[in-house]
Amino acid sequence: MKAHPPCVILDAPQLAENIGAVARAMANFGLSDLRLVRPRDGWPQPRAWPAASGAESVLEAARVFDTLPHAIADLTLVLATTARPREAGLPVMTPREAAAKLAGLGGEARSGLLFGGERAGLETADVALCQGIITIPVDPARRSLNLGQAVIINAYEWRMTFDDRAPQNFPPPTPSASGEALMGLYEQLEAELDTSGFFHPPEKREAMVRNLRAALGKAGFTDQEVRTLRGVVTALSRGRGKVLAKIAAARAAATGRGDSAED
Amino acid sequence: MKAHPPCVILDAPQLAENIGAVARAMANFGLSDLRLVRPRDGWPQPRAWPAASGAESVLEAARVFDTLPHAIADLTLVLATTARPREAGLPVMTPREAAAKLAGLGGEARSGLLFGGERAGLETADVALCQGIITIPVDPARRSLNLGQAVIINAYEWRMTFDDRAPQNFPPPTPSASGEALMGLYEQLEAELDTSGFFHPPEKREAMVRNLRAALGKAGFTDQEVRTLRGVVTALSRGRGKVLAKIAAARAAATGRGDSAED
Repeated sequence: MKAHPPCVILDAPQLAENIGAVARAMANFGLSDLRLVRPRDGWPQPRAWPAASGAESVLEAARVFDTLPHAIADLTLVLATTARPREAGLPVMTPREAAAKLAGLGGEARSGLLFGGERAGLETADVALCQGIITIPVDPARRSLNLGQAVIINAYEWRMTFDDRAPQNFPPPTPSASGEALMGLYEQLEAELDTSGFFHPPEKREAMVRNLRAALGKAGFTDQEVRTLRGVVTALSRGRGKVLAKIAAARAAATGRGDSAED
Repeated sequence: MKAHPPCVILDAPQLAENIGAVARAMANFGLSDLRLVRPRDGWPQPRAWPAASGAESVLEAARVFDTLPHAIADLTLVLATTARPREAGLPVMTPREAAAKLAGLGGEARSGLLFGGERAGLETADVALCQGIITIPVDPARRSLNLGQAVIINAYEWRMTFDDRAPQNFPPPTPSASGEALMGLYEQLEAELDTSGFFHPPEKREAMVRNLRAALGKAGFTDQEVRTLRGVVTALSRGRGKVLAKIAAARAAATGRGDSAED
């Protein structure tokens, strides 16, 4: 049985736009339970809605709490995201490790991801109410993560625990052409290149053919692409034939004119 | 030898604030090479700077290109992020798979992550210039990712290829107390509980002790925590003693008063 998606708890968030961005990030990865502890400007705040950009349902279902203990009363596992050293003595984990822990919860157990306000972050007393600390492996030179971005990385890792493959709205990849089809292309190409005098000097032909085949083979052409390339070779060869024919015709005409001029 | 960090290419980005947010997301995970192809409002745009929130160096080093081919001219591997089905026939991968591919590039090879503009996304002709498609496993009901958030998930996955452990700015976890120390706590507690008459009926004592020890053992107390808890047990026991002493004293006093009243 799949674990319940974690809720997201924002402790003393400041900007309504950030609350909206958090809602959007949650909806992107299938989270829906947003809890606000003492939002600075009260709730609801109209400015959150444009930032949610379609995730209105998350904002409309958001609940406000006056204390963190009230907000997490029904949760059996709460992990706090913070980049600051703590003396709490709690296990420290990456978002990936945290997601595995959340996903491993069984049955009806409910979990939460706790984030501090934009300026102050989480207080040590708040962290002490949690069962673990999530810390995102940011560049030490640039630790400050936007609230919505801290949320989305955790929401993404949660979703990756059960949906770690590319969405299936892409057409299935077309298989590569068979060795036989490829060989047909190679042989046609090489025959035309023989005609063109491309393989020079002759003793290097074998190595040149080998290198050419290896280079083309790396592309993993599909059957359709092989057909297209055979057409390309044909067109180039015929084009060359046409050019030669034109030159011959022009020469013949010139000769003819010469002849007639001599008449 | 570690691969170069990928550059980030924004094709026809619209909002300067989003370009700033992208710069901030890049800096959070150690990326620094930002390339803008035909930014709608020109470049530089003052409104990008506040959104970058400290990642000014990325914005200041950003380069502007008039076409995508110019922007990717020096790159040997370019992966396009898009949530839309394409007929390009390119390999489709998650950000995690993409990061592994980027990190696997050897030597001086340069790579890039391509993102489309906010409204239109990438054109098929742009995608055809890339070697693969990254698609983020979003909830099918809410596909639309903010530009900065699409960038940060990829930047995060890039960094996780070589920095997938919690930062070491946390104090190392204190080891759990030894079995001997734990047993000292258990035995003290159980002796006090015997005194209190907690284990009732007596034939259940063994199971009650076992359950209590198992419950406390799960916490993995440190030595300091064991000392603190032994103090707690002592305080509760002495407190109980004090209460009993007070009751006895009160009774004695009452008896005394009673005696004297009879005098």
